[in-house]
Amino acid sequence: MIDEILALIENKEFVKLRSTLAEMNAPDIALMFDEVPQDTVLRLFRLLPKELAADTFVEMEPDTQEHLISAFSDKELRDVLEEMYVDDTVDIIEEMPANMVKRILKQTDSETRSAINKILKYPKDSAGSIMTIEYVALKAEMTVSQAFDRIRATGVDKETIYTCYVMDANRHLIGITTAKDLLLSDPQTKIGDMMETNVIYVDTFEDKEHVANLFDKYDFLAMPVVDKETRLVGIITVDDVIDVIQEENTEDIEKMAAILPSEKPYLKATVWETFKNRVPWLMLLMLSSTFTGKIISSFEETLAVCVALTAFIPMLMGTGGNSGGQSSVTVIRALSLGDVEMKDIFKILKKELLVAFLCGIALAVVNFGKMMLIDQADILASGQSPVLVAVVVSLTLVATVICAKLVGCSLPILVKRLGFDPAVTASPFVTTIVDAISLLIYFEIAMNILQF
Amino acid sequence: MIDEILALIENKEFVKLRSTLAEMNAPDIALMFDEVPQDTVLRLFRLLPKELAADTFVEMEPDTQEHLISAFSDKELRDVLEEMYVDDTVDIIEEMPANMVKRILKQTDSETRSAINKILKYPKDSAGSIMTIEYVALKAEMTVSQAFDRIRATGVDKETIYTCYVMDANRHLIGITTAKDLLLSDPQTKIGDMMETNVIYVDTFEDKEHVANLFDKYDFLAMPVVDKETRLVGIITVDDVIDVIQEENTEDIEKMAAILPSEKPYLKATVWETFKNRVPWLMLLMLSSTFTGKIISSFEETLAVCVALTAFIPMLMGTGGNSGGQSSVTVIRALSLGDVEMKDIFKILKKELLVAFLCGIALAVVNFGKMMLIDQADILASGQSPVLVAVVVSLTLVATVICAKLVGCSLPILVKRLGFDPAVTASPFVTTIVDAISLLIYFEIAMNILQF
Repeated sequence: MIDEILALIENKEFVKLRSTLAEMNAPDIALMFDEVPQDTVLRLFRLLPKELAADTFVEMEPDTQEHLISAFSDKELRDVLEEMYVDDTVDIIEEMPANMVKRILKQTDSETRSAINKILKYPKDSAGSIMTIEYVALKAEMTVSQAFDRIRATGVDKETIYTCYVMDANRHLIGITTAKDLLLSDPQTKIGDMMETNVIYVDTFEDKEHVANLFDKYDFLAMPVVDKETRLVGIITVDDVIDVIQEENTEDIEKMAAILPSEKPYLKATVWETFKNRVPWLMLLMLSSTFTGKIISSFEETLAVCVALTAFIPMLMGTGGNSGGQSSVTVIRALSLGDVEMKDIFKILKKELLVAFLCGIALAVVNFGKMMLIDQADILASGQSPVLVAVVVSLTLVATVICAKLVGCSLPILVKRLGFDPAVTASPFVTTIVDAISLLIYFEIAMNILQF
Repeated sequence: MIDEILALIENKEFVKLRSTLAEMNAPDIALMFDEVPQDTVLRLFRLLPKELAADTFVEMEPDTQEHLISAFSDKELRDVLEEMYVDDTVDIIEEMPANMVKRILKQTDSETRSAINKILKYPKDSAGSIMTIEYVALKAEMTVSQAFDRIRATGVDKETIYTCYVMDANRHLIGITTAKDLLLSDPQTKIGDMMETNVIYVDTFEDKEHVANLFDKYDFLAMPVVDKETRLVGIITVDDVIDVIQEENTEDIEKMAAILPSEKPYLKATVWETFKNRVPWLMLLMLSSTFTGKIISSFEETLAVCVALTAFIPMLMGTGGNSGGQSSVTVIRALSLGDVEMKDIFKILKKELLVAFLCGIALAVVNFGKMMLIDQADILASGQSPVLVAVVVSLTLVATVICAKLVGCSLPILVKRLGFDPAVTASPFVTTIVDAISLLIYFEIAMNILQF
């Protein structure tokens, strides 16, 4: 595809080039623009029809956008900005250096500029920060047929015409209606008589993850955003919600794997950026395992008497970490989907205790069998009774799995209660705590049963 | 809310109850039905208006649905089924026992029944399995005004009227148009002249995760599904895609945490179900750590000479596991978002190698300092040179981080290449491999530097 287009440029077949580009979709053109030589981007961009040009601009990488903005004439920039929705303009502004932002704001009309500035002020993860202001506004006194006239007159500039918002004289949201209901209604019906008054809306400061959960639950295509006096200030559309869901999931997954959230796709981030996102947690977890080391050091004499015990440390710590990780990740996910809440903590603890007990017993039985079959010789060689050592390890397993699962399920809830993101309490974090606990249990049980 | 409704039942205020319920949204009524006593569910359900009743039924838990189906008269069941979209009926059928399925199919008309049977035959994760057949079909010869007549006549039963599909006489998909474009067009325009012919569609057997990525990329509200001869067989709507995205993410997160994917929300699953999803991986990982144990046993003499070395095993294995986990989780996520592909493996390996080198050096430097400050006394007590032991541990750190990151980033790609889900190669799996590698490196370096 790219080769074909480069060949058309080479041969100066601009008519064919123009029609080929006009047939393509904006996201595909944007992908192509990230691959072709930078000096051809502007020439290709100028061949696009106005609306497609703006749609493509929105989809491009920030680098390419920046390059184009500095290459555009004032008029070109204004044309692109006029076709764009305010939420997309805000997204682009957030990625641009100060001088580019100045240029963009200078080319927007004063009404749009004040809307942009308002949206930029909302907190990063709020509903206000992802909303747009291009919606269809209707009045309760209008008839269905007048509503259609309104949609025909203004709809071309709206992000969605499929949900329409009914406001009173003070811009309070009093109802919504859909294009489907309008189409299936008698043209003379008053909007006030057919609109849905039981409207679900969100506040500008609502967390965007909660907004996404509402879309998931109610199957909305768009949702109104209101201020403290329930005046309509904007709408959020489903396409932006899908982006929110994917970003939040990526962020949660990264945090669970002890990585700081990255802003860029994997291959776009530089080595240095990736390093900076990964090393802090590695460092912290490495230093915190000093405690585990200290525990082992303090039981050095026990270990010297029975070196065979050392061989089971990795298995015990690994099983503890995996058990705790399972519980914490399950609870973190359930919290972010809204499946569990703070008040469910006792239900969760009870369930995890039972599951841990079953897992612990199952693992202990298999481990006992395995040790008697496979590790007997090693243990005998170190001068201990294989049965006793197998009992020590198996009992430790049960106790470790129970502790790990209880710590794993309660930590995310406690951390959320304290106002932090529970995702950081996943496997690596839980593992470090569980490592220390399982070693203490191990040596305690060993000293009692093997009678050092 | 529930108390209020139970009080209304108690006082037999059915008129008020009916109007209260009619004002509520289907997902909220469904949530309430899961909480009230089972014998009141049918009485409440009978008070709902027909359409709301069907919408609520779709949102309920399978248990409640099953209870209602067995309590319904044939007519009641038929009424509910008639209001439902085929994709929702299929979802319910998949959860029901055989006798309920028989009852449901008996109450649907033969056309719907054959559509249901067709959809049930598509593979579990395919586009065909999540599509529905209620779409607006237009002909190229129609005018815009005729198209509106068609929408008004049939739209009430369609899952979406906002994207309309244009087919030729043999049901081949030849174009699409949107309600927005129709509203903004002259009523006498021919559909064939205004429709979009460059249609993005998927095959019935396409993976649903790929379908979700297409919605994310192109911001669709609906997408056509075609058979091998590009005949239109159904559509997928954005609300179902959000469900797919959330399910796929939950599944990936569970697999990454060594849990078998669960079908139910956390609190709905029984202890036994949760146990069954968690114990297999714990068992497998426990048994595979036998290798790690064997490695330690085989170096027992080394450890007996310098017990201080044991204290650093947890830190080395932990850091290795965390480093490898970071890389594998990053690559797994990038694979599922479509950010990287098989062909990028060399770019990925190069990047991970550089990041690993930087991380390894940073960690080693800090670790060396920490050991000289904190662990010096312990090492001296075991009769070794603190500097030499610190060098051994720090060198092992660098080598372990590099191995861990290379294994972590390449394993998901290899596993995907072999046709399995890469998500299973996240932290726990990588950790087990890296544990063994890091121990071998550790003892090798220790024997060389400390000269046993």
